[in-house]
Amino acid sequence: MTILQETIAAIRPADPAAVAEARAHQDRLTKPRGALGALEEVAIRLAGAAAVSPPPLPVPAALAIFAADHGVHARGVTPWPQEVTLQMVGNFLAGGAVANAFAAQVGASVTVVDVGVAADLDPAPGLTISKIAYGTADLSRGPAMTPEQAVAALEAGIAHARGLVDGGARCLITGDMGIANTTASAALICAFTGHEAAAVTGRGTGIDGETLERKIEVVREALRVNGLERGPGAASPVSALETLAAVGGLEHAAIAGFVLAGAALRVPVILDGVIAGAAALAAAALAPDVVDHCVAGHRSAEPGHAAALDHLGLRPLVELELRLGEGTGGLLAHPLVCAAARVMHEVATFDSAGVTDKEA
Amino acid sequence: MTILQETIAAIRPADPAAVAEARAHQDRLTKPRGALGALEEVAIRLAGAAAVSPPPLPVPAALAIFAADHGVHARGVTPWPQEVTLQMVGNFLAGGAVANAFAAQVGASVTVVDVGVAADLDPAPGLTISKIAYGTADLSRGPAMTPEQAVAALEAGIAHARGLVDGGARCLITGDMGIANTTASAALICAFTGHEAAAVTGRGTGIDGETLERKIEVVREALRVNGLERGPGAASPVSALETLAAVGGLEHAAIAGFVLAGAALRVPVILDGVIAGAAALAAAALAPDVVDHCVAGHRSAEPGHAAALDHLGLRPLVELELRLGEGTGGLLAHPLVCAAARVMHEVATFDSAGVTDKEA
Repeated sequence: MTILQETIAAIRPADPAAVAEARAHQDRLTKPRGALGALEEVAIRLAGAAAVSPPPLPVPAALAIFAADHGVHARGVTPWPQEVTLQMVGNFLAGGAVANAFAAQVGASVTVVDVGVAADLDPAPGLTISKIAYGTADLSRGPAMTPEQAVAALEAGIAHARGLVDGGARCLITGDMGIANTTASAALICAFTGHEAAAVTGRGTGIDGETLERKIEVVREALRVNGLERGPGAASPVSALETLAAVGGLEHAAIAGFVLAGAALRVPVILDGVIAGAAALAAAALAPDVVDHCVAGHRSAEPGHAAALDHLGLRPLVELELRLGEGTGGLLAHPLVCAAARVMHEVATFDSAGVTDKEA
Repeated sequence: MTILQETIAAIRPADPAAVAEARAHQDRLTKPRGALGALEEVAIRLAGAAAVSPPPLPVPAALAIFAADHGVHARGVTPWPQEVTLQMVGNFLAGGAVANAFAAQVGASVTVVDVGVAADLDPAPGLTISKIAYGTADLSRGPAMTPEQAVAALEAGIAHARGLVDGGARCLITGDMGIANTTASAALICAFTGHEAAAVTGRGTGIDGETLERKIEVVREALRVNGLERGPGAASPVSALETLAAVGGLEHAAIAGFVLAGAALRVPVILDGVIAGAAALAAAALAPDVVDHCVAGHRSAEPGHAAALDHLGLRPLVELELRLGEGTGGLLAHPLVCAAARVMHEVATFDSAGVTDKEA
């Protein structure tokens, strides 16, 4: 078996006994039943994913930022020059980006993986160079990647996740950097959910109306050229791997592998924004049970993100109209996930605390 | 001047120069403009409140849980026995409640203030006994408190906030415990916003439809008996202090004082749920500029909370259908507020990082 096949084969769905035990334990704690709202479901999800209740605390956490460039940049889908991908990798490694500040706040480590930046990077602490290509081909003219490139990027993500877990990480957080990657995300979301381009293509990091029109048209071309047009509810005409290769980015493929590896290792994964959502759709198409191991960190301002989360059946924890990527939304959610897990370990029961339960 | 008058007189609105500088600094940082969504507004709010940009990091944080009982409990507005207030104070002091687990997660201290529990409490570390009364009178039969009791509770809250800030706290988080206090909250919200009882009275910690009908009727009686009926937009017929005394709880008054003192000391206050929202309405009626010093930690499942936040013009950071109180929603928001402030200190600018800004 390949590393990808081996990873997919190791993924199990949520453990029903742990889920039941976690739910019952929530109801014994000194709080009104259900009073922690969506956080109770997070705790139960962690228990199911870990197959034990109470679930392990998801610490320490490790953010991995997968960086890559996109051939579709040439179509004018963003006002940002392509070299910003490279420059922002430098900013991450120097500790100057928002992701660094948020990671410091929540105590997460930060690593960067070059899976496809369109320039050579100098080795640096915190940087893993796993370059598959100098950016993808233009997805609006044909496949962005070959299936072999997509598999290589998936396996780079798997390898990175394994390394972080070997190093002690007990929670993985997805991050991304790649100018033009919301265009590829929109195309992936259309291909995996059946939504029309206009419904899921957004302004990314901030584009004007004219550029948005062009971006939507580019997404439509990408689906047409790659034979990925379909209606909602219709089965995808091509395989998950071919779809990912056709319209994804190298960072999408790597993130999909990262998510699959977390699930295989029973280490929970907090998904960041629309890029992670698109990558998670690919991962779920390859291994549906992967979703049981994911927590949606936030919902970004990008319309395709809500569509991706709906398709995955995930509820985001933070909804503050962030549209930055880098893992920032996933990092913000980490203390909330920790709080949900801590409740299961530290809160007294009605019996143990001598607190009277409400009258039935 | 009394301590209350002195506190109110010390409160200043957001500093316009610090707000302008914070906004301009956000736009120089290595991220697309506006990409941090609502968190950018939090950072700007903190700067305005502190009158300096970048604003101080809001650490360490101190949660204060104000505990009190309610005469209206006798009307059958909740299935929980009144002694649960006392029992939960014991649970907080033993470290066994959800608030303790969340405080541990975010590194906040926890203190409990008895301003009106209907039983005598033994002295204990972390407990301040400032008992004004053994619970309020039944607000549906007449005023819950005398104006003198309300002032005493306000000043107990002020004294506690001052003590925490003297001890080094740089962020105050409101907490509450008091069986039946969502009934008093609903009455306060009606009185201060003009909403009708049915629109803002909810199921609290979980009541059935019959109890909810009774609770709504009790709120209506409280407004009628105390001369607080009014339409939306109409001016309140009685003063803010009289309103607070008539239908508030001792913990509402203490929280209002706590919030006023935070504002007077230019230490930001994170508001918890519907009890804090109702108390903040009272504080804002006494000193409108207090709102510039508040951050809404979360929006609870209680319908009156959204009405209170709308009236205050505050956007909640966490919306996960919590309905527990204790300060749990405020605690969850603390890392988000810290993250917003950290960005202002730690993130590189386009110039300093050598990152190309987008094309205009």
